[in-house]
Amino acid sequence: MTSERMIFTHGGAMQALEQEIARLQPAGIFVVSDTNTSGLLPLQKYPGYVICTGEEAKTLETAREVWDAMEAAKVTRKWVMVCVGGGLVTDLGGFCAAAYKRGIPHINVPTTLLGAVDAAVGGKTAVNYNGLKNEIGFFAPPRAVIIDNILLATLSSEELRSGLGEMIKHSLIDSPEHWHKIAALEDFNPSGEEFLQLIEQSVAVKQRIVEEDPTETGLRKCLNYGHTVGHAIEEVCLEKSAPVPHGYAVAWGLVVETVLSTLNEGFPTEQLATLCTLVRNIFGPMPVGCKEYDRILELMGHDKKNDTNGLPNFTLLKEVGQPVINRTADRADIITALDIARDRLG
Amino acid sequence: MTSERMIFTHGGAMQALEQEIARLQPAGIFVVSDTNTSGLLPLQKYPGYVICTGEEAKTLETAREVWDAMEAAKVTRKWVMVCVGGGLVTDLGGFCAAAYKRGIPHINVPTTLLGAVDAAVGGKTAVNYNGLKNEIGFFAPPRAVIIDNILLATLSSEELRSGLGEMIKHSLIDSPEHWHKIAALEDFNPSGEEFLQLIEQSVAVKQRIVEEDPTETGLRKCLNYGHTVGHAIEEVCLEKSAPVPHGYAVAWGLVVETVLSTLNEGFPTEQLATLCTLVRNIFGPMPVGCKEYDRILELMGHDKKNDTNGLPNFTLLKEVGQPVINRTADRADIITALDIARDRLG
Repeated sequence: MTSERMIFTHGGAMQALEQEIARLQPAGIFVVSDTNTSGLLPLQKYPGYVICTGEEAKTLETAREVWDAMEAAKVTRKWVMVCVGGGLVTDLGGFCAAAYKRGIPHINVPTTLLGAVDAAVGGKTAVNYNGLKNEIGFFAPPRAVIIDNILLATLSSEELRSGLGEMIKHSLIDSPEHWHKIAALEDFNPSGEEFLQLIEQSVAVKQRIVEEDPTETGLRKCLNYGHTVGHAIEEVCLEKSAPVPHGYAVAWGLVVETVLSTLNEGFPTEQLATLCTLVRNIFGPMPVGCKEYDRILELMGHDKKNDTNGLPNFTLLKEVGQPVINRTADRADIITALDIARDRLG
Repeated sequence: MTSERMIFTHGGAMQALEQEIARLQPAGIFVVSDTNTSGLLPLQKYPGYVICTGEEAKTLETAREVWDAMEAAKVTRKWVMVCVGGGLVTDLGGFCAAAYKRGIPHINVPTTLLGAVDAAVGGKTAVNYNGLKNEIGFFAPPRAVIIDNILLATLSSEELRSGLGEMIKHSLIDSPEHWHKIAALEDFNPSGEEFLQLIEQSVAVKQRIVEEDPTETGLRKCLNYGHTVGHAIEEVCLEKSAPVPHGYAVAWGLVVETVLSTLNEGFPTEQLATLCTLVRNIFGPMPVGCKEYDRILELMGHDKKNDTNGLPNFTLLKEVGQPVINRTADRADIITALDIARDRLG
């Protein structure tokens, strides 16, 4: 699997993109963006497709619209796709690139913090299907990922926080040193050089793990920390028409799964307390009640990393920096963890 | 890329499949077959999906039906898909396996000679899209391919001939020794041990080339010999509602492209004559007239291996066993070659 090139820049996204294009020498450029991001970079001279913003657009139907536009532009295998946007754009654009004529290369320019530290890196592409998140997709790494924190600085604070959810996760599975830096994060300047370094450290965690296990047969499941519960919270909120940003759901999922880690793996309670304070301050209380527990448990049975026929599969932590994969938990433990997490998050 | 295991057997397909399953130890088996092949092996105890026979079923819509059936059967990433059928089943089933939850393994049991020597081997999966053959797909090699020539012996003579088209191609790009064996093939017993050895030799050519170039960046284009013209003939015949088997179209395409090889690369005329006689005897005259030349030329501009913006990309032969890739030819040369081929095929 081709390893992706990571480029970190402080305002130089377009210059970096031009360098990557010069290096790849494609026969043409096809740009996928969304209604929020199509004007961010001066790429209007190239053919492309602008996706409607929003998770509900992440479908095979939208993929067909992209493929139709690629055919209309006579895109060949020697072209390169450039995806400019958040996780929707890089996941769906990458999926379209991976399957078009059995695959053309793509470059990701994430425009959200969540995209920068998660979706744009690691080669996962997908669309949602039958209401299931990322159910249809491929492992298809981008040729390059260009992360420019000046682009990210235009984000709303909600979008910035959503990215912080994944950064908290990366620090917890990485090391105490990394976790202490993140835990101390109160105010931060997203367009500062210092924050760019934190992004770089966060991406390095994901890259290291992905390189050791590109197709998620084992170790990569570490990255799933917080996600078994997080995805279920995300779906439950979507079902009740009160969608929450992915990183928020992950942050709450991290608290629930860290409670489980304390209960079942002996994760230290003082670090759990620090995490609860951090998540409460940044993300607020968990927007699910005990009436929704049944649905949450049901949804966890559908998670694609669940391969044990019925019981949810968790990544848990023994300590900060010591993840253990393929753990399971029974119904009562999960309900207890949800109760404790809701209580701690006020 | 995982290399596929090739198993050749004379009546032992089910036993070989059981051994592969025992080796992989999947959590479950999902079977994709078609209306002709669903009863060939005793796999009825497993969940699965039976595709309607016919190229018109090779669409994203059918892929969705397979994915829906996989979800209904609660297939997880630890399952294995078994594809029992011709190229439609192995191409479409493999595509569904490759994209379901970002990929589950699949095993191919080809039931046509064409499938055995071509579609089931090499990792190409695809569906047709907007009338373009194999336009949407992915490189995803099967874990194993089980070729049983007793299964193949149930085929109609038309289906057997269709497979011979690709076997002729493999021998031409391989070596004079291989080509002479194939050129001497008049009557043959498809269920004989000798023919199984010829199949094995043919598959070995494809495997060797695919292993050197799994994602078709260069050398693999050798396998495209006969296909630039062959695909166009296939599509033109489909458009006039007189479809021809793929291997027939390839055989006629081989003649046209070998004429081009003689005109532009100095391929020996005596070998061209031998090929014309063989193809005429097995496949008969080419079912296209000069009125269809314009459409054939237009369709060749759409071939996915065409990456030179407008001019068709050909693999040609300098000699038997000496293919040259990325050749092009102008309109006049192609028309001359079509004229000569039609004349030689009577």
